[in-house]
Amino acid sequence: VCAFIECRGVAARHMLSRDKVLTIDTMNPTVKNVEYAVRGPIVQRAMQVEKELREGVKKPFTEVIKANIGDAHAMGQKPITFFRQVLALCSYPELLNENMFPEDAKNRARRILQACGGSSVGAYSASQGIDCVRQDVARYIERRDGGVPCDPDNVYLTTGASDGIVTMLKLLVCGEGASRTGVMISIPQYPLYSAALAELGAVQVNYYLNEEKCWSMDLSELERSLAEARKHCNPKALCIINPGNPTGQVQSRQCIEDVIRFAAKERLFLMADEVYQDNVYAEGCQFHSFKKVLFELGPEYSDNVELASFHSTSKCYMGECGFRGGYMEVINMDPEVQAQLSKLVSVRLCPPVPGQVLMDLVVNSPQPGEPSYTTFMKERTATLSLLAEKAKLTEQILNTVPGITCNPVQGAMYSFPNIISLSLPPQALGQAPDMFYCMKLLEETGICLVPGSGFGQKDGTYHFRMTILPPTDKLKILLAKVKEFHQKFTQQYS
Amino acid sequence: VCAFIECRGVAARHMLSRDKVLTIDTMNPTVKNVEYAVRGPIVQRAMQVEKELREGVKKPFTEVIKANIGDAHAMGQKPITFFRQVLALCSYPELLNENMFPEDAKNRARRILQACGGSSVGAYSASQGIDCVRQDVARYIERRDGGVPCDPDNVYLTTGASDGIVTMLKLLVCGEGASRTGVMISIPQYPLYSAALAELGAVQVNYYLNEEKCWSMDLSELERSLAEARKHCNPKALCIINPGNPTGQVQSRQCIEDVIRFAAKERLFLMADEVYQDNVYAEGCQFHSFKKVLFELGPEYSDNVELASFHSTSKCYMGECGFRGGYMEVINMDPEVQAQLSKLVSVRLCPPVPGQVLMDLVVNSPQPGEPSYTTFMKERTATLSLLAEKAKLTEQILNTVPGITCNPVQGAMYSFPNIISLSLPPQALGQAPDMFYCMKLLEETGICLVPGSGFGQKDGTYHFRMTILPPTDKLKILLAKVKEFHQKFTQQYS
Repeated sequence: VCAFIECRGVAARHMLSRDKVLTIDTMNPTVKNVEYAVRGPIVQRAMQVEKELREGVKKPFTEVIKANIGDAHAMGQKPITFFRQVLALCSYPELLNENMFPEDAKNRARRILQACGGSSVGAYSASQGIDCVRQDVARYIERRDGGVPCDPDNVYLTTGASDGIVTMLKLLVCGEGASRTGVMISIPQYPLYSAALAELGAVQVNYYLNEEKCWSMDLSELERSLAEARKHCNPKALCIINPGNPTGQVQSRQCIEDVIRFAAKERLFLMADEVYQDNVYAEGCQFHSFKKVLFELGPEYSDNVELASFHSTSKCYMGECGFRGGYMEVINMDPEVQAQLSKLVSVRLCPPVPGQVLMDLVVNSPQPGEPSYTTFMKERTATLSLLAEKAKLTEQILNTVPGITCNPVQGAMYSFPNIISLSLPPQALGQAPDMFYCMKLLEETGICLVPGSGFGQKDGTYHFRMTILPPTDKLKILLAKVKEFHQKFTQQYS
Repeated sequence: VCAFIECRGVAARHMLSRDKVLTIDTMNPTVKNVEYAVRGPIVQRAMQVEKELREGVKKPFTEVIKANIGDAHAMGQKPITFFRQVLALCSYPELLNENMFPEDAKNRARRILQACGGSSVGAYSASQGIDCVRQDVARYIERRDGGVPCDPDNVYLTTGASDGIVTMLKLLVCGEGASRTGVMISIPQYPLYSAALAELGAVQVNYYLNEEKCWSMDLSELERSLAEARKHCNPKALCIINPGNPTGQVQSRQCIEDVIRFAAKERLFLMADEVYQDNVYAEGCQFHSFKKVLFELGPEYSDNVELASFHSTSKCYMGECGFRGGYMEVINMDPEVQAQLSKLVSVRLCPPVPGQVLMDLVVNSPQPGEPSYTTFMKERTATLSLLAEKAKLTEQILNTVPGITCNPVQGAMYSFPNIISLSLPPQALGQAPDMFYCMKLLEETGICLVPGSGFGQKDGTYHFRMTILPPTDKLKILLAKVKEFHQKFTQQYS
């Protein structure tokens, strides 16, 4: 009773104050540490600028060109007809009675609907994903990896790849102080990783990609980074993005082998972000999945190294970001941990079913002899060829600009050029120089890029990330404007 | 160099061991504390039983009837035609050229596509959700709440309501030991809350609903619970589910007023889970949104009390769980915190766009005079009337069973009857008695319910949660079987 009265006294005092319960000082501090440049201040300003243009504010340009995010459809890429036909059929099954759809699209829709509760994509699926979709994913992985077996029970459908990555990191993180979990990520990295690690309060362990060697991974750098990290945390996992985001490199088979041997020797859980697995453009480059290489190294590795790999419907030739489809495969995961993983994903009930449908279509696309095969292949090839062209174009034009050097865009959807001669103008003090550069570029030209500092870079170097996604004519304008701007900028500030 | 060599020594020793990097002992301990009964052991066993039936294993029943989860479509409820037409049109816009769709469906689809990047639902949306959808949500809230203004900037589209709830809890949690954030939740509760709090390492502060008074909230119980909690943590938020899950009550206006005054006095952030806002069946009951009551209490409250409320596409008359659509509205949130919220949601890019489309259709449904209005209203009314019938039926039949008492199912989709006379059989030792009961029910009858212990209940009382969703004929069979089983069970163990 005493405590009760005392409590109400405290409450009464509180009531006098009109302060909020939840303020910047009382909120979760780990959330405050989160940063996500791909949708950061530059992009917010770009949206304001667009609004100003609509309101008639005079600018030295008439439209904002967004090359900040890998959002293919927003840049005019058309969806794959077959995928959208099946999605429409699943959404409104009355269309199955219409003659306008090819038989293979109808069959796919029927098969998926049969696997849904009440034959409706509006029912929850199993938390791990629809059974037949996971089976199709497993068969896709087996084909891709030349027959290496894949158990559908190890496949988890996810809400985009981000969801899978965050879920895996969540399982891995524990400890305090010097025994806090460390996670090795490449620098430059895709900032989902740094954001998730900040939110989970894990230690971000940086290893630097070798810009001189086309953003490859160096074993000696991995060793340096790990040794350094072990002084102050407990590094447990190593994340790789291949093909690379934001750096566009495609790792060689040898490099992947080295990384796997390193992970085995150093006892690191491997996380392979392979969402760009179809986006390989450069001659002589080829996508090798970590899983395939792991199995080719023999049972000493394939029976022991723990690996989670991630894929998505958002990239490759389909670019269906809005559906938030994806999957994760786990290999050599401790069965008790895997039971915990299954429990954890059940709390969020299930990944969005339309995204699961789309993932199924990606891994089970039209086959030779089926009515939709020719159109599908034509659309797929056209999109990938165009991306390859734009990758080349971007690299070539950027490399004609004095003061910019750009590695080949071997894969993925981005170039990450080095703005070598960037010197800091006085008014940029307190701001990352490449942020100053990108903000000025936006204000003067309407082009929206993301500064390299949002992805991490070696101290004293400056970059920006730019997607290769705008339509070719717009991409050419964009590159010409960047060239002109860069020359003016370096003149002004040298 | 020294540290480097030392490190490699450690690694070499590690390599000798074939232990996993990630084990039940090294994984995140907060994840281990998570429990989610709605998809827990009973449901896993139910899936096994289904498999055994398919494989021809003889059982005293021929099918598993799942009344464990609020999954309307899985139980045969049909989707709203208009919603699915618009979804099909958005998925495959070529259908806009067909004559088979009503004009209002086409117009809705055109409006939404125009608001999408590249006119495709495959583009990412703004992280907070598509602008025009948020505007439609705001107008819906204003209509629902008799004109209380709603700013679309305070509306966040989410991946189901769960996503919004977890995001809000994430913002709130901080501190260690006695200053650790406490969050008040009802007991019984929907286990998303306990699961999220466990994962975030926050303190779950229980307040008990009054079963004798139809699961209402008692002010004195809130006071008791809060005073108790303040001895060992820092209670910052109060969660309410109305209409109630798993308890099916609909709170009176007076009760909501009391809760708001309590939150204001005690400085608690309010979280109102209102996903069942259209599911009100009992005569004399009405849904009152927390926001509306807050504003009716005048500026002393409406200018100060911080509130987040949640809605979803998964329940009500649409039951579209698979699309994972939802929204959250925040009121009186500190602008700095709201900026952090906006940043946090940007890391996951955007909620699934088909779910956003569906949310839009729910808040902007066909209007009188539009071609789809009559069918829409017919379908909506039929679904809600049928649910009302089944709510009544469930309550009535359960109350005929000696040893079971069941409160009226005033709203939502569940009954949560009290199995009064449950006495513990010897072989159930070490297992919650209601878990033993439900598992035995499953094995003997094929009926899948969730034990009350998965939601929380007063010590020494036992319940189960059962949905009212099975088709009427199946629901009658289910209730008859429960009746028979309960009588046999109490005979056997009394």
